[in-house]
Amino acid sequence: MTEKQKLQAGELYRVDDELAEELSRCKDLCDEYNHTPRKEKEKRRAIMRELLGKCGENFNIESNVWFDYGYNTEVGENFYVNHDCVFLDTNKLTFGDNVYIAPQCGFYTAGHPLDAMARRKELEFAKPIRVGSDVWFGGGVKVLPGVTIGDNVVIGAGSVVVHDIPPNSVAVGNPARVIKKLKPLPRE
Amino acid sequence: MTEKQKLQAGELYRVDDELAEELSRCKDLCDEYNHTPRKEKEKRRAIMRELLGKCGENFNIESNVWFDYGYNTEVGENFYVNHDCVFLDTNKLTFGDNVYIAPQCGFYTAGHPLDAMARRKELEFAKPIRVGSDVWFGGGVKVLPGVTIGDNVVIGAGSVVVHDIPPNSVAVGNPARVIKKLKPLPRE
Amino acid sequence: MTEKQKLQAGELYRVDDELAEELSRCKDLCDEYNHTPRKEKEKRRAIMRELLGKCGENFNIESNVWFDYGYNTEVGENFYVNHDCVFLDTNKLTFGDNVYIAPQCGFYTAGHPLDAMARRKELEFAKPIRVGSDVWFGGGVKVLPGVTIGDNVVIGAGSVVVHDIPPNSVAVGNPARVIKKLKPLPRE
Repeated sequence: MTEKQKLQAGELYRVDDELAEELSRCKDLCDEYNHTPRKEKEKRRAIMRELLGKCGENFNIESNVWFDYGYNTEVGENFYVNHDCVFLDTNKLTFGDNVYIAPQCGFYTAGHPLDAMARRKELEFAKPIRVGSDVWFGGGVKVLPGVTIGDNVVIGAGSVVVHDIPPNSVAVGNPARVIKKLKPLPRE
Repeated sequence: MTEKQKLQAGELYRVDDELAEELSRCKDLCDEYNHTPRKEKEKRRAIMRELLGKCGENFNIESNVWFDYGYNTEVGENFYVNHDCVFLDTNKLTFGDNVYIAPQCGFYTAGHPLDAMARRKELEFAKPIRVGSDVWFGGGVKVLPGVTIGDNVVIGAGSVVVHDIPPNSVAVGNPARVIKKLKPLPRE
Repeated sequence: MTEKQKLQAGELYRVDDELAEELSRCKDLCDEYNHTPRKEKEKRRAIMRELLGKCGENFNIESNVWFDYGYNTEVGENFYVNHDCVFLDTNKLTFGDNVYIAPQCGFYTAGHPLDAMARRKELEFAKPIRVGSDVWFGGGVKVLPGVTIGDNVVIGAGSVVVHDIPPNSVAVGNPARVIKKLKPLPRE
């Protein structure tokens, strides 16, 4: 298996030349995006379309923003990201439709082993994060590797999402826990 | 009522052309500020004076910093903001004198409805945040819509301020709670 | 004593001309670093070597990043810092070897007095932060003035580190508490 294949399988991997090049390509695009003024709308849209794995027609992503690989992030329609969010999309990072992300949030698919001897060998891992549709993240929320968040969810500001969050719920705190259930959305 | 009037009344509103233009104007100024080196002090002061609704003589705001409308943020004398703070001043965001804000803080007057059907209609709301004088925010603090913080208050690093904080107190945690009372300041 | 000497002794001090000049020098270097694209590797390495008090051969620090004085930050070999971290190295800020810092972390040696009358006189303090070797900080962690973190430690995402953390441990939460002990690393 290549390092990239190990990564995608959720196994320990090292950043080899292939991955380093992909990272660099993405970071350069982020650099360019963050240094392009907001008023140059078309240029910014073009950079983001090149960067993201998949996106809809209606999206708005404020500066600064950072991704790891870019192509691992797939977003649906109506995707809004406020300032200073970080998307470590080392593994798949998917968002449904109608997702609002407040400022200073972090989505981290990437992690390191607890075993420092493994970290010294530069071994890393990454687990997918899956976010449903109609989800609103309050400011400063952090979402950890492997987490799945259902449809119709609100995550309160400052929460740290360590465990899965079921659909139709409001969750807050560190670690984030469900504090309220919401009425399911009507079927379309 | 116009959308701006609904916003100011604390009601659900949508960003129409008038508001979108005001947002753009402010974001462009933030872009310019963040891309102007710190050593160009006078240029930076001029941008910030144009951006803020009200400010004193003595202020220092480190990069990066982001506002929504700018004119909704009113600050007193001796206002110090450290790096990477976000001020979502969609509604009024007022600070008294002698306010210190550590890095990575967020002041969010803006919010979205818990009802996802309303979010799909792009309905938003915003509630004023009022901060008194002689207040120090530790690093990474987040303050939520509608919160009032009294005079002579310290908010500990990493706190999430969901409820009002009375004067003469130290508050910490998520949600931030008062853990210590302070002696009132002498009347001037 | 000069203000700088008071600072270094952990006493209350004010930023005088000497300190203001040192701050400016460092912030200008940070500005230059953050505005130099990542692909200009050699230029970025040179800026960081000029900025840091001490660093090894193998380091990677992503943008944006901010320091206060720069010379107070001393790092060992294999130092990796992800996006949008803030290092308020007003006093000594030391890191051992093999330290990984995830995005959006803050290391704050600087603080203000709880007494607002002292803050009005612009009195500040700063206490050293010492981090051992083989330490991994999850995303969004904040570390407060005076904290010592031992070797072989993992701090969970979103934690606020208020108290010392002993070696060979995993700590999480606000305030961060040890939730798991790790096997000591083999002696070299």
